[in-house]
Amino acid sequence: MSIPTFYNAHHSPVGAFASFTIGMKGKNGGFGLGLSGPAKQNVFIGLETTPNNFKLLPFCDAPSESTEINDFGIEDSSEDSYRPSFYTDEEISRSMGACCDKFTAPNLVFEIFTPHVNDDLEDAYIPAICMTLTVTNSHQEKKRWIFGFEQNHPQLALRPEGQILQNGLEFALATNDETVKCGVGFEPGGILNPRSEVNTLHLLGDAGVFYGELEPGETKTIQFVAAWYKGGEATSGLSTRYAYTDTYESVKAVAESALAQFEASVKASRTYDENLASKNLSAERHFQLALAIRSYYGSTQDLIETLTGNELWIVNEGEYRMMNTLDLTADMVFFELDHHPWTVANVLEWFRDRYRYNDEIVKDGVTVEGGVAFTHDMGVTNQFSRPEYSSYERAAYDDCFSYMTAEELLNWTGIACIYSLKQDIEWAADNHALLVECLTSIERRDHPEATERKGYIQWDSSRCEGGAEITTYDSLDMSLGQTRGSGYMAGKIFGICIALAEVLHKLGDQENADRASDQAQICANAIISKVNSEGIIPAVFEENSSKSTIIPHVEGLIWASEAGLSEVITTNYADLLKVLSKHLEAVLKPGICLFPDGGWKLSSTSDNSWLSKVYLCQYIAESMLGQSEQSSAEKAHVKWLTNEKSQFYSWSDQIINGIAIGSKYYPRGVTAHLWTK
Amino acid sequence: MSIPTFYNAHHSPVGAFASFTIGMKGKNGGFGLGLSGPAKQNVFIGLETTPNNFKLLPFCDAPSESTEINDFGIEDSSEDSYRPSFYTDEEISRSMGACCDKFTAPNLVFEIFTPHVNDDLEDAYIPAICMTLTVTNSHQEKKRWIFGFEQNHPQLALRPEGQILQNGLEFALATNDETVKCGVGFEPGGILNPRSEVNTLHLLGDAGVFYGELEPGETKTIQFVAAWYKGGEATSGLSTRYAYTDTYESVKAVAESALAQFEASVKASRTYDENLASKNLSAERHFQLALAIRSYYGSTQDLIETLTGNELWIVNEGEYRMMNTLDLTADMVFFELDHHPWTVANVLEWFRDRYRYNDEIVKDGVTVEGGVAFTHDMGVTNQFSRPEYSSYERAAYDDCFSYMTAEELLNWTGIACIYSLKQDIEWAADNHALLVECLTSIERRDHPEATERKGYIQWDSSRCEGGAEITTYDSLDMSLGQTRGSGYMAGKIFGICIALAEVLHKLGDQENADRASDQAQICANAIISKVNSEGIIPAVFEENSSKSTIIPHVEGLIWASEAGLSEVITTNYADLLKVLSKHLEAVLKPGICLFPDGGWKLSSTSDNSWLSKVYLCQYIAESMLGQSEQSSAEKAHVKWLTNEKSQFYSWSDQIINGIAIGSKYYPRGVTAHLWTK
Repeated sequence: MSIPTFYNAHHSPVGAFASFTIGMKGKNGGFGLGLSGPAKQNVFIGLETTPNNFKLLPFCDAPSESTEINDFGIEDSSEDSYRPSFYTDEEISRSMGACCDKFTAPNLVFEIFTPHVNDDLEDAYIPAICMTLTVTNSHQEKKRWIFGFEQNHPQLALRPEGQILQNGLEFALATNDETVKCGVGFEPGGILNPRSEVNTLHLLGDAGVFYGELEPGETKTIQFVAAWYKGGEATSGLSTRYAYTDTYESVKAVAESALAQFEASVKASRTYDENLASKNLSAERHFQLALAIRSYYGSTQDLIETLTGNELWIVNEGEYRMMNTLDLTADMVFFELDHHPWTVANVLEWFRDRYRYNDEIVKDGVTVEGGVAFTHDMGVTNQFSRPEYSSYERAAYDDCFSYMTAEELLNWTGIACIYSLKQDIEWAADNHALLVECLTSIERRDHPEATERKGYIQWDSSRCEGGAEITTYDSLDMSLGQTRGSGYMAGKIFGICIALAEVLHKLGDQENADRASDQAQICANAIISKVNSEGIIPAVFEENSSKSTIIPHVEGLIWASEAGLSEVITTNYADLLKVLSKHLEAVLKPGICLFPDGGWKLSSTSDNSWLSKVYLCQYIAESMLGQSEQSSAEKAHVKWLTNEKSQFYSWSDQIINGIAIGSKYYPRGVTAHLWTK
Repeated sequence: MSIPTFYNAHHSPVGAFASFTIGMKGKNGGFGLGLSGPAKQNVFIGLETTPNNFKLLPFCDAPSESTEINDFGIEDSSEDSYRPSFYTDEEISRSMGACCDKFTAPNLVFEIFTPHVNDDLEDAYIPAICMTLTVTNSHQEKKRWIFGFEQNHPQLALRPEGQILQNGLEFALATNDETVKCGVGFEPGGILNPRSEVNTLHLLGDAGVFYGELEPGETKTIQFVAAWYKGGEATSGLSTRYAYTDTYESVKAVAESALAQFEASVKASRTYDENLASKNLSAERHFQLALAIRSYYGSTQDLIETLTGNELWIVNEGEYRMMNTLDLTADMVFFELDHHPWTVANVLEWFRDRYRYNDEIVKDGVTVEGGVAFTHDMGVTNQFSRPEYSSYERAAYDDCFSYMTAEELLNWTGIACIYSLKQDIEWAADNHALLVECLTSIERRDHPEATERKGYIQWDSSRCEGGAEITTYDSLDMSLGQTRGSGYMAGKIFGICIALAEVLHKLGDQENADRASDQAQICANAIISKVNSEGIIPAVFEENSSKSTIIPHVEGLIWASEAGLSEVITTNYADLLKVLSKHLEAVLKPGICLFPDGGWKLSSTSDNSWLSKVYLCQYIAESMLGQSEQSSAEKAHVKWLTNEKSQFYSWSDQIINGIAIGSKYYPRGVTAHLWTK
């Protein structure tokens, strides 16, 4: 079995930018709201074996003396005899799907349910998740169980109130089992063994624990919910609130409502996972997709603009927390369209209305009119950037942090086309003029003069102020990082112009549809013409090209494929498909675009490979270019995510030599959803 | 000069639970909201010397390569040549009062103004403070200055907007100087040397910096404000909002208003400090009082109850953040009455209405009716505890965390008396019945049978459930920690009953006034009768007394003294004063109640001494018992607060062998205000 037991995974409601991240050993998980990574809290889940000896799942620091109590200047006031130890690795097994995550140990089963978006639920966007703890007392005396955590927010504190344990106004754990007790203390022992029962209701200490008793031989399942709440203004730059605040007035109200729909939530989670299992993915792909879906939802935010009441869907960019990074949306759209297509239109429209700009373009010192374009993102960490500007892009750069003008123009156009074709062609009709503007802007960035067009981007945005545009592959070398002359971009223009031609055709605008088809043809020609004697397409098409060889030439086909135009490609662009197939075959070899472990290497000259893009390219390779799934690659990719250095970050994108180095805790991996098609 | 240059001090608005804590070297200060200690942020204040070389005040980490940028997976994208270094210790001087704190270095003066409560200000409770940076360019070329910080809140990010630099919705730095620029980046260099001016408006990075240019020979003073804002619900358990949210809708509005009243604020700060200087305290006492006043205001919170609109004044308990700990209020009341007496009545009434209870009392296994009492506190870290219960007290303890029933009953009564006599006797009339209840409860805790009263507490509250009550000195040994038989408590009952007798007399209730006087007399008799052959009063009056010798026998006199009844004491209790004078003389010796460094040791058997109580006892000793200020003690106390281990915490209370160990970052030191009387 290549899937290990211990690694972090998000367990998140939809649109709350919240997560119960857990699964890696140690103080590496916990309950987070709006964070760039796991909350790093101790989580206590365990069962009493002999009096005061508790076996715990290993999700907290190894037991040691608490030091906090000493802040009160007293040397030793603890008379608690609570002695925790961990279940051994061998005693614990885990089964994780996209919505159910189950830890099984002797006499203890802890399961977490995250139903994600499901229309069967009364409120699929409730900012809460469900959990069950099933414990069995195999002894002759009463035994106790515990479930709780240690809060670590610098401004918050815990407060027990009946069956609800609140952390400030932001978070709560709750149960509907009235036999369950809950308390607060410096560490679990002080709560489990109070000198008087009433003491558990004092408020000092950062440990909050639920606990209860089992009769000899008794097995019991206790239902818990974790609820998050951020009231009032949620963002600056543009004032918004969380959408759920219109339904719930407090974290307590969220918890109560989540408990009320507990059974339905669990059912929805199981149904989702059964459906996913029925796709018969390999164990490795099933794991990667499930992990990726979790990290996606942990990054989502469903907001309402204060001034207008308009909804605003945000996917935060993992550890970076940039908001609706458009080159991520372009990869995640295939997943989103199958789960909540409204978010796709929503993001398109916010870019259209607030994060669109017009520029000039520059080549060899000549500046001319450019066209419409879109920003890289809408802000970062709950700060909206000013209209027409991203949080990320800067002038006078030619690598990371430069402008992604052409990249994001293509992304918006591609997403708009796919949305229109798969979901709502009327939307395209409403945005017809802008779609034509996009076509013009794409053409002009190849070249303003039709006769000079080469099928790739030749001009840079004037916003670069002498720098050079980059692609989404901002941290890779020039094989993929630079926009001008990029073979990856050529493939992307091709696929998106195919889709755009189809949209314009359906709108009855054949003249512009033909323009889009023409541009696609120029791109196809360019790619074909660049093939070298070994069947390899160079990474960069201009003179100063590097010696790099890349996989993402094939990436752009996704836009035609997902537009439902695979047959058109097969029929009309058989030569291009043939070239791309041969290219792939030639480069998917150790030393070129395979790492020694068999994992995919997007660029032969960079040790930095991005799993989201690997997944997407795998899908294209297998669905259109004659490749098949390689077990060695899948095993390698699982190891990239779950090795000791990577496993803290749930799903991560940028993997350097097998270790998650950048784009950690990241939403983009849902390109793996394409595998299920 | 015994006052060093580098130590942290609070710089706080009134009632905002906020602080710009700064003054210790390194990444040890910063802008905090609702924290238990300094924010641990880098603060950048400096001036360019040669191109790109900046001299900074040493309030940030020693310059090194930024690592955050590497999270983006790129190896080296920085082309910034900014090179910071620190002014030397010898180049920096500091002058700190209670409201003005001024750092002077070559060509640079940084001054912080905290006007505290001043009726001359349009809004003395605005959640903002003022700062000026005065810089001189002594060079022949243009030079730049910088002022900014590195944010470290896990859920927030920076956003520059014109002359305001916001951190989430919680904090902002702002200036009204339109020539000043501001930007955000991974470190100051990226902001000072942007490849293009427009780049400073991107949003990535945790460093936010204001900067500007000086012409050769130019001297310039730039005004800044730091503004805090916590919108919406501020607390749980009892829903409240910050009072300032009724005036200001955002942190930006706060900043703009603070800039508008800048000159008046600075003037108010200077006036306060001039007045303080005119008291002619020794340098050491002036320093300690100024530092203590700062830590007091950093802990204050002015709230409005959501449901009723009632105001609610909270003083948070420093690092512990317990709310309105009543045994602290009892020490701070002397300061508060001279600054904002309304808060004293406010806290009294909240205790009366929500945190009052009735108990039974226990002695030798016998339980009888007790009386009215008050809780230790109202909650912790923005969580109100349930009515009639504190966050702190627990049953079945006999040391730290036990009940302080008699201690808090006396505190409420004492505060009520002082408030009534100094501020508003009508308030006492409105609370006459409760004051009599308090008297009864005090008497009964000595003994329910009048004939059995001994002048100290003999009974424990039934809430202790077999444990024993403690005093405010919770972490000291039994010499001061236990309530039953405590000599410290005997003195406290004495002083408060003297004050209470006066209040009842003024209300025309001579019968009860006489009861109070009788109880005072019993206490005085008890103290006098316990004196041993060396003139020393034992710490504990019951059989099982320890060998301890303590200073706080004298503490209770403060209640009579502050009630304006010093003459009554001198006249009617000359024998008691004589005994206490002799006691003090006998114990204020090395090896008994003086540490080797000359500092005051509250208990001969504990190395834990509390500065707030030392200050109070010093005042009593000097104003009523014939002692005089000892330079060696003052120098020692300054060192206790400013040594390398203590200086991080601004003002701290619990000092163990000269090091701040508990009650750090604490509001209680304003007992030093008594020195100015």
